[in-house]
Amino acid sequence: MPAAGPDDTAGGRPGAAARDGAPGGAAQDALRGILGAEALLTGAACEPYLVDQRGLYRGRALGVALPRSVAQVSRLLALCNAQRIGVVPHGGNTGYCGGATPDESGRQLVLSLARLNRIRSVDPANDSLIAEAGCILAQVQEAASQAQRLFPLSLGSEGSCQIGGNLSTNAGGTSVLRYGMMRDLVLGLEVVLADGRVLSSLSGLRKDNTGYDIRGLFLGAEGTLGVITAASLKLFPQIASTATAFAAVADVRAAVTLLARLRAASGERVSSFELIPRIGIELTTQHIPGVTDPLGASHAWYVLCELSSARAAEPLAAILTEVLGAALDDGLVLDAALAGSERERAALWRLRETIPAAQRKQGAGLKHDISVPLSALPEFVARGSSWVSTHVPGARLVAYGHVGDGNLHFNLSETQGAVRGELTARAAEVQRALHDLAVSLGGSFSAEHGIGRLKVAELERYAPATELELMRAVKRAFDPHGIMNPGKVLRAAPADRDER
Amino acid sequence: MPAAGPDDTAGGRPGAAARDGAPGGAAQDALRGILGAEALLTGAACEPYLVDQRGLYRGRALGVALPRSVAQVSRLLALCNAQRIGVVPHGGNTGYCGGATPDESGRQLVLSLARLNRIRSVDPANDSLIAEAGCILAQVQEAASQAQRLFPLSLGSEGSCQIGGNLSTNAGGTSVLRYGMMRDLVLGLEVVLADGRVLSSLSGLRKDNTGYDIRGLFLGAEGTLGVITAASLKLFPQIASTATAFAAVADVRAAVTLLARLRAASGERVSSFELIPRIGIELTTQHIPGVTDPLGASHAWYVLCELSSARAAEPLAAILTEVLGAALDDGLVLDAALAGSERERAALWRLRETIPAAQRKQGAGLKHDISVPLSALPEFVARGSSWVSTHVPGARLVAYGHVGDGNLHFNLSETQGAVRGELTARAAEVQRALHDLAVSLGGSFSAEHGIGRLKVAELERYAPATELELMRAVKRAFDPHGIMNPGKVLRAAPADRDER
Repeated sequence: MPAAGPDDTAGGRPGAAARDGAPGGAAQDALRGILGAEALLTGAACEPYLVDQRGLYRGRALGVALPRSVAQVSRLLALCNAQRIGVVPHGGNTGYCGGATPDESGRQLVLSLARLNRIRSVDPANDSLIAEAGCILAQVQEAASQAQRLFPLSLGSEGSCQIGGNLSTNAGGTSVLRYGMMRDLVLGLEVVLADGRVLSSLSGLRKDNTGYDIRGLFLGAEGTLGVITAASLKLFPQIASTATAFAAVADVRAAVTLLARLRAASGERVSSFELIPRIGIELTTQHIPGVTDPLGASHAWYVLCELSSARAAEPLAAILTEVLGAALDDGLVLDAALAGSERERAALWRLRETIPAAQRKQGAGLKHDISVPLSALPEFVARGSSWVSTHVPGARLVAYGHVGDGNLHFNLSETQGAVRGELTARAAEVQRALHDLAVSLGGSFSAEHGIGRLKVAELERYAPATELELMRAVKRAFDPHGIMNPGKVLRAAPADRDER
Repeated sequence: MPAAGPDDTAGGRPGAAARDGAPGGAAQDALRGILGAEALLTGAACEPYLVDQRGLYRGRALGVALPRSVAQVSRLLALCNAQRIGVVPHGGNTGYCGGATPDESGRQLVLSLARLNRIRSVDPANDSLIAEAGCILAQVQEAASQAQRLFPLSLGSEGSCQIGGNLSTNAGGTSVLRYGMMRDLVLGLEVVLADGRVLSSLSGLRKDNTGYDIRGLFLGAEGTLGVITAASLKLFPQIASTATAFAAVADVRAAVTLLARLRAASGERVSSFELIPRIGIELTTQHIPGVTDPLGASHAWYVLCELSSARAAEPLAAILTEVLGAALDDGLVLDAALAGSERERAALWRLRETIPAAQRKQGAGLKHDISVPLSALPEFVARGSSWVSTHVPGARLVAYGHVGDGNLHFNLSETQGAVRGELTARAAEVQRALHDLAVSLGGSFSAEHGIGRLKVAELERYAPATELELMRAVKRAFDPHGIMNPGKVLRAAPADRDER
């Protein structure tokens, strides 16, 4: 392959080179013919689309397409399929695994869904709405709220992530304990396949047993099987009452037991149950203005727990007080405080939500997004902590997260005074040990962040060979020319690599 | 193909004939080698496995296999795949579409999962249990109950249906409104593929974003992509309080509105909301001993609604009384009665559950299992009823069911005095009209019963061509020789038909 010049946004391959009069220019012209000239970015305008939000990957692109309609997406994919141009779907660029970033070849087309951003319809009687893929998550939440309903998916990035990205990564967030993952919130999809055909299945039915769950394959496929352009989403009653508390416990096992007691007492009202280590309080009180320790003395572990209900007259505070009171009596809980106002509740959540930012101020770190069955969580924390203190004694362990779902962000921070970069240099070794441990306990090496480009090798390592073969067979069936987000989730097949 | 003799259980094809010394005998011998002689039924012993529960289909079989282990299932499938012997997975034989019945060729092997019937493990802390496919649904419910948990799937046939069948048909039942379909209750699966490889993914995680949702394809695939041998199932808190009421409404729209009010008032406590027509009360009071009209005067429509909670001290009766009281005041509800005891509650449910039996006593009938978005339900009932009274004036319409999910059993009964068989002779015409109507309103022609053999042509008629192509591509990828339940869900491909 000829080397691309410094000003090119594409290499010199048939159908994809960018020099004037060269075939890449022909592809760009054809794309402009479909989209309109202003809807195809080239050159410096592509920059924001070429780097992932963690700064792990920097790519190059044939261009960035901003279609305004499903018809345009369909024609665009048909063209790219015919010309073997790799297509990289791109939402809010908030992902953790580089899944929306093009590779370095400059031959791939970034496909932004940002302009497909209409709420097409809201059906309160059916508790559903139809949103296009480019809708910001906060926009979808607002549309539901306008109809006196709740769309419960809630992430830190909800002000910028797009629902198409949430769908294609099967996003999790803070409400999984009560409402499930993105997959559980979907009633229908509209998808454009690699060859441009549109699969439209947006009806919003709760019961429909007519053939294979083809639709479900696109959720979590990260744009590698087709482009999701719209979805019919489930809506729920709005929350009318909440009760929030902060409790100190001796260990993770006590936290898991407390969750069981809360569930038994509150009849499925538990909506959040987040584990926070002592170091989480130290880091946030140190680095984030306005964050204070909710309790007096220092304890090893804490839980932020919240009950919520769609009924206003629900005795949630009484239930919480009763359970925590009994737990204090028998020593399961060492100390506890109930939020007495919305302001106090917000302060507790702020502490939890600023742990990542506080960690970043501390210095470089390693992140792991693991999950294990709840019953195995205490063992994972004990053995994982032990491994870290033995093998990486200079690092500080910051383990926190959605413990109700068995999902922990098991992260390491550099200690102040540590040799810069020493921890980061050991990333692969640490990841290997922690992922091996999680999987050995029946867990997952990627609870919610997905695979993208970052974890392709991990998937090959941990997924059973039979499952990988079936995934590749599905990929070949849906995308025979391998144009859909090549190199993401699954390694591109050799023949595909030559073509793109 | 040579015609089979009257005493044969198989036709005369290579690898499948049953005469002594003939190749079919060789296949049976090989199967006995894997299973043990007593675990392969032939001849008259096959009878119960050859007819579906509705008496729609009568097949013949090479034999009926009753493996005791996953290893045996694996070896059996590897053999059948190599010899191109069609395999028909068979659970409790309670399905509605002939999906577990072999065809008339006598060359297919029925694979009973009945002896894979262990509860392998229960993990209350993780709210999950692992059950083998041959476990009776009631057995799974009991195992959950023993651990102070609830497995909420609930069907009329729960005393005989097997969980493998529930999984492969994505069963619905009476608790979908609150807990979802079978698909929503599954955390993991163990599946044996057509070639005998075992795909084992039973970990019970709530959050696991590692590649495509291959597992989800088997749910609702009705045994055509592989044989489910075990599943990790979600458990819930047990129910500690209920409140049940019977209310009369003027029309279906009023019923849908009442549901919305109940949901708004009860904070997601609504667990059942069943629509019953006047004729449902007439038929049951007439044909079922002990069933009486819960209300005084005659009304056009009724709703059986129930709230439930995992908390004992929940004011469910008060909520129900308040909502119904307000609805009586503004005329949404015409009359209502609250169940004042468990005996009264049981009586209300008995009325609902005996409607099918009462219909059968009335005479022959036509059944339709449709769903539409809830907002379209009033229109479906109005237009469907109008079509029936215009085109089939001799029939009595008995429309009832899980209206909270948009799912109606829209059935027709012969009137007494009608010409016997006249209604049944018009089955295809009536089905065409009602399925066309449901689909035109964004609905489904098979809400929960699936496709089996009965609705293969309906699936071809109503599924978008693109979706059918993708289903066939998945089928080819998972079962290249087409041995898995041939002719069910999808028409067997021509090459496949020749082979089996």
